[in-house]
Amino acid sequence: MAIARVRAEVASLHAELVRYGLVVWTGGNVSGRVPGADLFVIKPSGVSYDDLAPENMILCDLDGDVVAGTPGSDRSPSSDTAAHAYVYRNMPEVGGVVHTHSTYAVAWAARGEEIPCVITAMADEFGGPIPVGPFAIIGDDSIGRGIVETLSGHRSRAVLMQNHGPFTIGSSAKDAVKAAVMVEDVARTVHLARAAGELIPIPQDAIDKLYDRYQNVYGQTTDDRR
Amino acid sequence: MAIARVRAEVASLHAELVRYGLVVWTGGNVSGRVPGADLFVIKPSGVSYDDLAPENMILCDLDGDVVAGTPGSDRSPSSDTAAHAYVYRNMPEVGGVVHTHSTYAVAWAARGEEIPCVITAMADEFGGPIPVGPFAIIGDDSIGRGIVETLSGHRSRAVLMQNHGPFTIGSSAKDAVKAAVMVEDVARTVHLARAAGELIPIPQDAIDKLYDRYQNVYGQTTDDRR
Amino acid sequence: MAIARVRAEVASLHAELVRYGLVVWTGGNVSGRVPGADLFVIKPSGVSYDDLAPENMILCDLDGDVVAGTPGSDRSPSSDTAAHAYVYRNMPEVGGVVHTHSTYAVAWAARGEEIPCVITAMADEFGGPIPVGPFAIIGDDSIGRGIVETLSGHRSRAVLMQNHGPFTIGSSAKDAVKAAVMVEDVARTVHLARAAGELIPIPQDAIDKLYDRYQNVYGQTTDDRR
Amino acid sequence: MAIARVRAEVASLHAELVRYGLVVWTGGNVSGRVPGADLFVIKPSGVSYDDLAPENMILCDLDGDVVAGTPGSDRSPSSDTAAHAYVYRNMPEVGGVVHTHSTYAVAWAARGEEIPCVITAMADEFGGPIPVGPFAIIGDDSIGRGIVETLSGHRSRAVLMQNHGPFTIGSSAKDAVKAAVMVEDVARTVHLARAAGELIPIPQDAIDKLYDRYQNVYGQTTDDRR
Repeated sequence: MAIARVRAEVASLHAELVRYGLVVWTGGNVSGRVPGADLFVIKPSGVSYDDLAPENMILCDLDGDVVAGTPGSDRSPSSDTAAHAYVYRNMPEVGGVVHTHSTYAVAWAARGEEIPCVITAMADEFGGPIPVGPFAIIGDDSIGRGIVETLSGHRSRAVLMQNHGPFTIGSSAKDAVKAAVMVEDVARTVHLARAAGELIPIPQDAIDKLYDRYQNVYGQTTDDRR
Repeated sequence: MAIARVRAEVASLHAELVRYGLVVWTGGNVSGRVPGADLFVIKPSGVSYDDLAPENMILCDLDGDVVAGTPGSDRSPSSDTAAHAYVYRNMPEVGGVVHTHSTYAVAWAARGEEIPCVITAMADEFGGPIPVGPFAIIGDDSIGRGIVETLSGHRSRAVLMQNHGPFTIGSSAKDAVKAAVMVEDVARTVHLARAAGELIPIPQDAIDKLYDRYQNVYGQTTDDRR
Repeated sequence: MAIARVRAEVASLHAELVRYGLVVWTGGNVSGRVPGADLFVIKPSGVSYDDLAPENMILCDLDGDVVAGTPGSDRSPSSDTAAHAYVYRNMPEVGGVVHTHSTYAVAWAARGEEIPCVITAMADEFGGPIPVGPFAIIGDDSIGRGIVETLSGHRSRAVLMQNHGPFTIGSSAKDAVKAAVMVEDVARTVHLARAAGELIPIPQDAIDKLYDRYQNVYGQTTDDRR
Repeated sequence: MAIARVRAEVASLHAELVRYGLVVWTGGNVSGRVPGADLFVIKPSGVSYDDLAPENMILCDLDGDVVAGTPGSDRSPSSDTAAHAYVYRNMPEVGGVVHTHSTYAVAWAARGEEIPCVITAMADEFGGPIPVGPFAIIGDDSIGRGIVETLSGHRSRAVLMQNHGPFTIGSSAKDAVKAAVMVEDVARTVHLARAAGELIPIPQDAIDKLYDRYQNVYGQTTDDRR
């Protein structure tokens, strides 16, 4: 059944955040849309990564409200649930959302500075620079709105919310996790590259060719294409 | 029984210091107050993290003296025991104390520089900057006094003792360990952010709102709230 | 049989890329020439490092075409296969090729800057600076040509392709993996050294002596010499 | 028997070099003196850390010659054996020697710059700055002589050989490994501290007090004192 599959996928994908060092303690969260339903599955709030299992993932509707009577519904969902819900409501093509406080991505966010596209892996994956979203704090729709306004019509699946950190989107939860892993990787690499001297820009037409090829040729199947 | 529970908790929490890379060799120590008694449990001195078990944790009174005839009392407690004891004597609300030499936090301490609050995760967790405590060396009460004087009335649960390193406090040993993990995380992130350009400050009223929400809403229960 | 042995070697060597933190997600690839045949074995495209086994490695001819009817031939080979094939066609002494996006090596590549030889381990292993190759993008022979033109007649077994990342060659796949590990190690060390002040050059005759000794004396056998 | 004990100790201590990230591939080596004999045990050359066992450690005399007919004597000892032997011949109080190419320590060595003593953990462990030794290359006694001349009469158990890397000594192999772990830790911390602003010096009398206390009070027994 679709919900069970998404619960299992979302639970296990949190291990990738740990594996790539994107999160400490209980920070960071992954969610996945339930295909064919106005529902998504997200991590509970403030629970250790060692204790995440499919049955304590939380099922929410697209207003971010917990679906009563379902497994895990006695717990609070991630405190970022409203932002995830806003994205699912307003970007129907999005199947997964990830938020972390990964070190280098947050460092760019603390300066409100977009990451320039100077490495080919970044052209492949993001098709250009990683944009910065507005400063917004928890409590209303402002984080979700900032994500959607920044990423709508943008090639990048990652946005650096100012003073806060990266949110990534994808066709699936796994695809959004990949974007979270890659945004930290490019944030770190470009930080280090620039610290030691002047960067060589990549011509725009080369960026375009790399992005086009990677979206359409790389990997074994559509699922792996990103 | 309360003492056995604190022994087990303090022993196992040392693994979190290793997991998050906050300690090398035998450096670093965690202690926890025994609820309802003028006692606390602390790590033995100079013992490998691989060899820490509940029964070789050491029970001390609030003067920092080992309680004779209890398990582990044939060994010396951590050389920082006097500082932990001073904190427990003078801050009754503190249930746990942690000390590490985690890399980035020590780097700020070697410059005697407080960490400015420029990321929302830091506003959540610490409610403002991480303060610096005085230069003090082992041998009398000066480290403990420096910790207490710096943190009394301060939102931060972490202090960077000058040229030395971070001490953190919490409502429990686990809460103090979380503060030790988070202080290194923010020390690293803000170090990197500032190395590459100018930081954007967070307005004080936004810091206040974030801190208030995190202390009162986040997590599943009071224990997880921090 | 030689092919089976190379499949097993190439599959298991990918674990070294993970162990030394040279790759994230499905990035990076190792290939090995089949001794005595115009064939090489390479990783499939876009497949997780957890799922790499000898039977899903892909056998290619020296034009980079998959050998039909062999294990794994239903999948696409690494998107860098054409570059590997070009190297095997044009450098008969090469037995293995590795490509990664390892962080510090890519950082030098994003500035198009060669790594100066200021540490003895680098003189041992590479006999001088690590050179930079041209900017080239996937789609024709230009990456392979850039690697071959840069490394032909050069002591270094590693080249930093501009804005892209390191490619390494070796007498075997293992030797090329060693070069990939070492190039990241020296890229990181020299980056950090230079960030803090002026580097002391090593006299050319000392570099020559170190390189000569290491190629001829170090290790137990010819295989380990590098 | 003493030799068997030293073989086991030296073999297992190499795992600490891996655990603390001080070595890549087959780089780095630990040796230990056999108590009461003019012998020491050292790692074989160019052998993977996964394959180190007591029986393939190599027994040498104090000229650095392999003792024929003993386990492992069919292999070559570490290419740094002559330097270890020189130290054992000339510093009878030394029970263990370690050499690594750990990243931050090598970075200081590539600038020929001593590490200033600005953190209390460094005062505890090394009693002052970490000195730099001369540029010397393999082939004669010059590395060993450089180590001995730099460390004789110095509090520090670590020397940064210029353009090369750290060598550490200790009362036992374990004590020298601890010094290797700690020298990288302080090299990293002081590098980062200084990168962000001016360091606060520690007064000499405080350094003296810290060093004296740590050598005489810390730990459970003489063995743990360091």
